[in-house]
Amino acid sequence: MLTPERVQNIRAQLGTAPLFDAILAETMVEVDAEIAAGIDVPVPRDMAGGYTHERHKRNFFILQKAGVLYQITTDKKYAVYVRDMLLAYAKLYPTLGLHPTNRSYATGKIFWQCLNDANWLVYVSQAYDCVYDFLKPLERTLLEQDLFRPLADFLSVGNPQFFNRIHNHSTWGNAAVGMIGLVMQDKELVDRALYGLKTDNIAEGQKDNDGGFIKQPGQIRAGFLAQLDGSFSPDGYFTEGPYYLRYAIYPFLLFSKALANNRPALDIFGYRDGILKKAVYALLYQTDAQGQFFPINDAQKGMSWLAREVVTAVDLAYFNCGRDPALLSIAALQGTVLLDEAGFTVARDLAKNLGQPFHQKPMEFVDGPDGKQGGVGILRSPYGNNGELCLVLKYSAQGMGHGHFDKLSYALYDETAEVVQDYGAARWVNIDQKGGGRYLRENDTWAKQTIAHNTLVVNEQSNYGGDVETGERFHPDRYFFNTENNAAQAVSAKDQHAYPGTRMHRTMLLLRDSIFEKPLVLDIFRVNSETENQYDLPTWFQGHLLAQNFDYQAQTTTRAPLGTANGYQHLWLEAEGKSPDGNVQITWFGSGRFFTQTTLVAPDDDLIFARLGANDPNFNLRPDPVFIQRKKGLKNAVFVSVIEPHGLYTPVAEIPQNPFPHLTALKLLFESAAYTAVQFTTKNGALWTVLLANENAAESAVHELVAAGKTYRWTGPFTVLKN
Amino acid sequence: MLTPERVQNIRAQLGTAPLFDAILAETMVEVDAEIAAGIDVPVPRDMAGGYTHERHKRNFFILQKAGVLYQITTDKKYAVYVRDMLLAYAKLYPTLGLHPTNRSYATGKIFWQCLNDANWLVYVSQAYDCVYDFLKPLERTLLEQDLFRPLADFLSVGNPQFFNRIHNHSTWGNAAVGMIGLVMQDKELVDRALYGLKTDNIAEGQKDNDGGFIKQPGQIRAGFLAQLDGSFSPDGYFTEGPYYLRYAIYPFLLFSKALANNRPALDIFGYRDGILKKAVYALLYQTDAQGQFFPINDAQKGMSWLAREVVTAVDLAYFNCGRDPALLSIAALQGTVLLDEAGFTVARDLAKNLGQPFHQKPMEFVDGPDGKQGGVGILRSPYGNNGELCLVLKYSAQGMGHGHFDKLSYALYDETAEVVQDYGAARWVNIDQKGGGRYLRENDTWAKQTIAHNTLVVNEQSNYGGDVETGERFHPDRYFFNTENNAAQAVSAKDQHAYPGTRMHRTMLLLRDSIFEKPLVLDIFRVNSETENQYDLPTWFQGHLLAQNFDYQAQTTTRAPLGTANGYQHLWLEAEGKSPDGNVQITWFGSGRFFTQTTLVAPDDDLIFARLGANDPNFNLRPDPVFIQRKKGLKNAVFVSVIEPHGLYTPVAEIPQNPFPHLTALKLLFESAAYTAVQFTTKNGALWTVLLANENAAESAVHELVAAGKTYRWTGPFTVLKN
Repeated sequence: MLTPERVQNIRAQLGTAPLFDAILAETMVEVDAEIAAGIDVPVPRDMAGGYTHERHKRNFFILQKAGVLYQITTDKKYAVYVRDMLLAYAKLYPTLGLHPTNRSYATGKIFWQCLNDANWLVYVSQAYDCVYDFLKPLERTLLEQDLFRPLADFLSVGNPQFFNRIHNHSTWGNAAVGMIGLVMQDKELVDRALYGLKTDNIAEGQKDNDGGFIKQPGQIRAGFLAQLDGSFSPDGYFTEGPYYLRYAIYPFLLFSKALANNRPALDIFGYRDGILKKAVYALLYQTDAQGQFFPINDAQKGMSWLAREVVTAVDLAYFNCGRDPALLSIAALQGTVLLDEAGFTVARDLAKNLGQPFHQKPMEFVDGPDGKQGGVGILRSPYGNNGELCLVLKYSAQGMGHGHFDKLSYALYDETAEVVQDYGAARWVNIDQKGGGRYLRENDTWAKQTIAHNTLVVNEQSNYGGDVETGERFHPDRYFFNTENNAAQAVSAKDQHAYPGTRMHRTMLLLRDSIFEKPLVLDIFRVNSETENQYDLPTWFQGHLLAQNFDYQAQTTTRAPLGTANGYQHLWLEAEGKSPDGNVQITWFGSGRFFTQTTLVAPDDDLIFARLGANDPNFNLRPDPVFIQRKKGLKNAVFVSVIEPHGLYTPVAEIPQNPFPHLTALKLLFESAAYTAVQFTTKNGALWTVLLANENAAESAVHELVAAGKTYRWTGPFTVLKN
Repeated sequence: MLTPERVQNIRAQLGTAPLFDAILAETMVEVDAEIAAGIDVPVPRDMAGGYTHERHKRNFFILQKAGVLYQITTDKKYAVYVRDMLLAYAKLYPTLGLHPTNRSYATGKIFWQCLNDANWLVYVSQAYDCVYDFLKPLERTLLEQDLFRPLADFLSVGNPQFFNRIHNHSTWGNAAVGMIGLVMQDKELVDRALYGLKTDNIAEGQKDNDGGFIKQPGQIRAGFLAQLDGSFSPDGYFTEGPYYLRYAIYPFLLFSKALANNRPALDIFGYRDGILKKAVYALLYQTDAQGQFFPINDAQKGMSWLAREVVTAVDLAYFNCGRDPALLSIAALQGTVLLDEAGFTVARDLAKNLGQPFHQKPMEFVDGPDGKQGGVGILRSPYGNNGELCLVLKYSAQGMGHGHFDKLSYALYDETAEVVQDYGAARWVNIDQKGGGRYLRENDTWAKQTIAHNTLVVNEQSNYGGDVETGERFHPDRYFFNTENNAAQAVSAKDQHAYPGTRMHRTMLLLRDSIFEKPLVLDIFRVNSETENQYDLPTWFQGHLLAQNFDYQAQTTTRAPLGTANGYQHLWLEAEGKSPDGNVQITWFGSGRFFTQTTLVAPDDDLIFARLGANDPNFNLRPDPVFIQRKKGLKNAVFVSVIEPHGLYTPVAEIPQNPFPHLTALKLLFESAAYTAVQFTTKNGALWTVLLANENAAESAVHELVAAGKTYRWTGPFTVLKN
């Protein structure tokens, strides 16, 4: 991992890169404290969050650090520590059967699942590499015979259902086996890692704990190179979403770093047109203004580009993929670097002030290895000094076992926080008190369900009947994505599989204009079905409801769930109303700002306020509020809303600025299979018209529409008019 | 307000105090924009939050700034702007009857209440003062005859129920009349302001909109000096609490500044042994680590020492009361200064790096003009680098109309946030959508009620039967307050009036020891009654419940309110259980940290989880969680709990540190009228014993207690033993 020349290079330049020196000093303090505390290699017993789990996890982090410290400082105490702990593991390992918890589709030995054993080996192989020359040959033989080889075999031939998948679990498995193989100079292990097991006897339809399939239909190849081919779309999108990409990128990059040193002919960083670099940038771009990853699919919210795996990604991408100065500004935010030549180079170039700002741009990512399984559209509309409204529309594939049933759902952010939230996962990662830190029951019963997302729910059912297998076969499709005009960015996608016999078409725009303080969101959701249905469109607004301009019946003295299944059983009905006015407005207050959603309503529409928390005996869910527009007994419907962010209020100043919306009325001017036209007006008398061609997304197509006595002509799938 | 010499002094030194220059430049930009936008003096119509209210409010802020700018820059455009707007007001004012809203006990003319008219005059009298010499004599005569004199009369002789109180409203009224009197050189107005109206014909029992009495029993004097005598305790505590002190301090200090310039013989800053300085420091010390005021009584949470009124307080106290360098560090946080010689001096001394840290210290404030109406005890236990646990126990007087029924309640903070919260007020100040920005109905039905606080509720009734008049007659009393030993700080108070025939005695300690990561809170709440009662002790923990070690029945499919009145009607019962174990523990997660409360329980105790939000048809309340321990059918009871903050978790690292409590068991070793003894043990085998003398708080008293076969001897009302 650290070639002799590179280590020498670092040693020679200590003192020239202050961030590197600081992290080196910090790491010495941390590892010295562990050395002083003594080695503890307990017999495995606990789930994540429990003592033995956290101890073994800490051990592998510290071993890796101690190994690197030995290389950089040449202080033998670090090598002695690594040696002694490895020998302790070599003594323990042969005595271990499967972990007593036995709850995983691939139970580990040191941990409850093979995945964590592979984490261990990815880190520990680095430690072993660092002290390899320090160890006596007999010690190496002992470690390899009693610990590394059996562990590598256990993770591969012993668990083909873990090793031979196209999945982040297998990436860890492949990297673990390959990295220890490189240290041991064991070509068989390295080839096994690169190309997978030749035979695996995995039964069709076999699933993992998350409900994901072990093998995708048609999957033939396995191993690390197959992961690189199969895990990413051509532009680096990872179908499980950025939270898992962040997790998977570490073994991808670490094994690649080792391969670049040891198998240069493979040109791993050039593989598949530089897919690793694309994956790193895809990761960095799927973030809000704080650098927090969009919580697509199963994802713990709050995870961000400050995570240790992203430090690895940024440093290695900077070092190996073109020295992009924008990466330095993220490294500066991270405030830490790797203790290797990549990290040293980043620290040195930061000290030279070579950094440039990292600009988050509107962009689309396609999904699927072939790039033909839908995608994710990101609109970003900056305003004012540091303001931004950012909208993410999801029309990607299911995302395997960690996928959510959320076709055509969106989430909205401003520069400070979520405005309309995606729930994320129902999980407190590694917090023992909450189900051992694993996915909670409510992740299936709530977080994955369609109603937990900002998209249409038909007849209170989730997409694909809530069936992963069905979901894996289909995906929505982009209709168009256009951000050429920064002031009128648009994304549009269609789906015809999530609900049989039902076609959904959602178009969302970010509109910016000087008459509005901040950009607007326009949402046009069309649905056409062969049957009469109930349609629910939720808005998971983040904040406290301030006002609504319609009457409702509030459930003030008794509460009951909104439904019985598919997530509805978790919602308390709080209030229900109707409006004869054609439009309703709700205003909420969040993060010190006001937001108003104006919604087109029919007199029969039910307007529902609900709150999460029913059927949640263990208090696993957050008590978040939602507004739901419900249409009943219709085959076809069009939902239209505008979200207007406005104003500011702080409890220190107590002076509300711009607390009322500027938008006054919203109407559906025209609707047919071919065209949709929406109009809205503002307080200062402006009239906005948005025209949409529903069946021809060609940029060059010319359209003509007569609506309300006026003839409109335009080119391309949409246009925005203002007069 | 700005003497000619002082203005000259500022002008001469421009460029030497960067912060002052920056604020001057900012203010010019702001006022220039208003001048460009033109003068708007609308006919009054709206409540707070509405257009005319906010416009008139903005006008008085801008007038004051424009006046000051004229003085400092000598640019006549500012004087012209002030003149023209004042003339517009002078044209409007004679046409005004009472404000059409007519909702206040003292309805105003420009605003819905006299209070806001007085705010206007306090600011505008400064503007008038600044342009006085610029105006022609005829203009001055017009302004005084048509605007200022009638307004000053309206606020005083026209509204004695507003002017002749000991109350923050009257402070504004007194200052307004006095300040305009000083500018007009009208001795009658100044004397009226200083000494009040001689006759007022205020009926006994007359109340204001908040339910507070207009006149306190026995009140004879009125006016500004009487406010200084009657509004503060001898150490500067303000009975309405720091949120209102922050509001009231502005007219206190502004009028005093003018008096210091114009009536130096009064020595207003020396009045009552420097009560104004004491009040400023009392304000600054009643803050959490972020400088947010403890939300005692009616208070909007989030208000802090960054507020504009506190800028005034800090600058004037620095300038007039001894140049305490610690005030400079708060001014630096505020990032702004007054545009007068006080602000200039602060900015200049900041530029000279004269600032020193402001240390928030454990301290007690007594309440009542005589200092004999209870008080507030603040314990502060620092730990680690910047850590702090801060506990506030409230045993002060009722606090008039803004008082809460919260005798012996506490709130707990760490260095980042609330740990156990006080609800604050049910109000969104100035936000029109929420009841015009005024107090909401739920402020009475919820926020003031006892169950909304962390203190004992007897038979689901609030203190004093929820009656302000009764509350005003009584108060709890300090039993002892001792923070001499920083590692074992304690406060103890008793009450015998909140519930007839019932004596309550609460003692709280902050304990720090190297075996705990952070300080602990020990809470011993004793109650003795002549009758058998139900006792509820709520803990308003801030965060998400992670775990509890007792069985409960969760209300998963239907919910009902916990009670029918006195705030209980607003609580949804979520779960109810019991424990045979003698102790229960609940662990919650908030602000990235873990907190565990260990509570002594009897097998018959009901252990209740509830959540705020029932009977709240307008979504005015926050959906906050609470844990309630309920004892039934007892005359006497002792509640004992320990709150242990521990550990850390971030979604970026995903590694919980120290997620489990260290404390293992808690027991009541001894209880009698004379003595209480509590013991607890920790994981590492330590045994702690806390001994309390219940009937003799003398520091010198020697006590002996035999408990569980062991004899304990100690001196003073409490001791803490560890072995």
